[in-house]
Amino acid sequence: MKSLKKTISVLGSTGSIGTNTLDIVRRSGGEIAVAGLAAGQNIELLAEQVREFRPECVSVMSEELAGRLREMIPAETEVMWGKDGCKQVASLDAVDMTVSAMVGAAGLIPTVAAMEAGKDIALANKETLVAAGPLVTRLAKERDVRMLPVDSEHSAIFQCLQAGSHSEIKRLVLTASGGPFRKVDPSDFPGITPEQAVNHPKWSMGAKISVDSSTLMNKGLEVIEARWLFDVPVNDIDVAVHPQSIIHSMVEYADGSVIAQLGMPDMRIPISIALYWPERMELDLPSLDLFTMGDLTFEPPRLDDFPCLRLAFQAAEAEGNAPTALNASNEIAVDAFLQGRIGYLDIARVSMDVLDSFPVEDIHDLDDVLQADALARVKAEGVVQNISEMKR
Amino acid sequence: MKSLKKTISVLGSTGSIGTNTLDIVRRSGGEIAVAGLAAGQNIELLAEQVREFRPECVSVMSEELAGRLREMIPAETEVMWGKDGCKQVASLDAVDMTVSAMVGAAGLIPTVAAMEAGKDIALANKETLVAAGPLVTRLAKERDVRMLPVDSEHSAIFQCLQAGSHSEIKRLVLTASGGPFRKVDPSDFPGITPEQAVNHPKWSMGAKISVDSSTLMNKGLEVIEARWLFDVPVNDIDVAVHPQSIIHSMVEYADGSVIAQLGMPDMRIPISIALYWPERMELDLPSLDLFTMGDLTFEPPRLDDFPCLRLAFQAAEAEGNAPTALNASNEIAVDAFLQGRIGYLDIARVSMDVLDSFPVEDIHDLDDVLQADALARVKAEGVVQNISEMKR
Repeated sequence: MKSLKKTISVLGSTGSIGTNTLDIVRRSGGEIAVAGLAAGQNIELLAEQVREFRPECVSVMSEELAGRLREMIPAETEVMWGKDGCKQVASLDAVDMTVSAMVGAAGLIPTVAAMEAGKDIALANKETLVAAGPLVTRLAKERDVRMLPVDSEHSAIFQCLQAGSHSEIKRLVLTASGGPFRKVDPSDFPGITPEQAVNHPKWSMGAKISVDSSTLMNKGLEVIEARWLFDVPVNDIDVAVHPQSIIHSMVEYADGSVIAQLGMPDMRIPISIALYWPERMELDLPSLDLFTMGDLTFEPPRLDDFPCLRLAFQAAEAEGNAPTALNASNEIAVDAFLQGRIGYLDIARVSMDVLDSFPVEDIHDLDDVLQADALARVKAEGVVQNISEMKR
Repeated sequence: MKSLKKTISVLGSTGSIGTNTLDIVRRSGGEIAVAGLAAGQNIELLAEQVREFRPECVSVMSEELAGRLREMIPAETEVMWGKDGCKQVASLDAVDMTVSAMVGAAGLIPTVAAMEAGKDIALANKETLVAAGPLVTRLAKERDVRMLPVDSEHSAIFQCLQAGSHSEIKRLVLTASGGPFRKVDPSDFPGITPEQAVNHPKWSMGAKISVDSSTLMNKGLEVIEARWLFDVPVNDIDVAVHPQSIIHSMVEYADGSVIAQLGMPDMRIPISIALYWPERMELDLPSLDLFTMGDLTFEPPRLDDFPCLRLAFQAAEAEGNAPTALNASNEIAVDAFLQGRIGYLDIARVSMDVLDSFPVEDIHDLDDVLQADALARVKAEGVVQNISEMKR
């Protein structure tokens, strides 16, 4: 058994990032311990995780689920529920770092709670920085909290930034797979079904993020995230479509050097980096095979055909609560698309309509974020209803 | 005028690396000053450089050239000649860093002199580490001297190594353009002329290094250099043929992350890094255009068709003075090829024959290096004579 280096809580432990995080804990040989786990409704998997990792505290979505989980796990683990349970798991005394991997705006509140308690953050939840970038980065500075990115693009940039200083950054280049419709003619976009949109070519992910990948909104949200995470003006962030997804992102420096991070598509790499930094963990993964991976290609994103990406750049430039509104309206739009209420092209239209009339204001506190989020959702729902009525 | 950061001497100031180094000095706006310049025979260019950069001391190849140069430049610059002149320029009191850019084994002695005087080294001279790796790295440690690589591959690796620690290195991947004969059928190799071999597809370089690029010996020497410069076992160094020469080299870490450096083929980038590190200089160069640079491809080197690369790996594994002998015999062989005394395939054969019978010993001091170098040259010249006699 190695000596303990870090104790973590995992928010969203039964999802894809959560289970991969626990695999890193498993491989750490005792260097990483788990104090808390928070999940939604998958109590069977959560119970298994509790039996293996013996956290002091877990949280689930509802009191009813908490009661059922209580019967499934040893008494030494405390069981909580709801928003308060999640906040408590996020900020347990024993925790050094909270892994924020809940999907959607729901991940924001416990992440802020963890930061207020001085916990470092391994950030997989996009909405934390997209919806509340100014607030969260201010909080990180005030509480001297480190935010380490977990998704592969930001992890790549984080690594590439080790080769220079902040003032020497010329631009960040986020790579994008281009999604499943990269080569589809725009005239065929209206007929795209949820099943087609969910089928991502490179990464196996949830439905919401798969749709976002197909519209390039996912990349747009990543641009906004990168803007806050690395404190780089949005004008200095470029997107390059790179269908092989081997180069995960790049940084160009003032001297013309470009530093890139490459790797196999395995989320355990960026997760291990977030958990171990400034060290790297020995992961017994196959090496990137340069000779079989195929040619690496790059092309500019088709902004006219994928307006969600342009919208994200516009919201990032507008700053304040504009990205909050974009994120919220996109969640409503994607949900409506997955339910068959609106068509594929309507996803961008909903966010566009919401942003067009949205009262952009500065963000001062979490309430400002939640209000903007709620307002955008109401407005987006209104647009969705209009569209779906017109369709009948 | 900016404030002075560093004073340098440039050994080989009229060559390609030398003139590019002086362009960086010119662009530095006073941050870098030149105390000494050493060149071979091109006194016209050297005189121009003296008038522009006002060094306190210069050196040329011979007393006769020194006398002619004396008449061409202001009296405030001292003029020296020969080996001693070069050593003096390399180790002037005012110098913080010596740029070692003389070609061939001749660059070794003044570089060692500079290190003994405690000067940091910007290293473009391959032979310093190839012929005297154990000696030079020991000296660097003893005198607390930094060696910063100037050629693009090692500069790339140096930059990529900022993203992790030494114990986390899994392997280094040196990229190679593959040279002009990458796609040539080996049955056509016997007919290759010096003119064909000197015509490198990507970089404009001297004749010797161009031939070395075509045989992949250049990459082999770089492998040996990397082994010493980065203290990595030769078994953990791979070569990947990458004809576009956009990725200049890579480092794979224990977690599977691969960090790469990309850029335009402009020597001023690695030179500026060596001169400015740990800072980066703002170079007003065009950005790497990902969308017009073409696809990036990789293939394994054809070791059977390019035996020089395999020889270099073997010499590196044998250690001691084996790389010294390889380097010396290759110099003789390439020279004989350029003079038309031996054929293209004989280049590898000369080094192979020399190494086969070479008494491999440890290197303890510069004399050991020079003796091994001299012995290998005698042996190589013998092989060349045998081959050229058999050809008649």
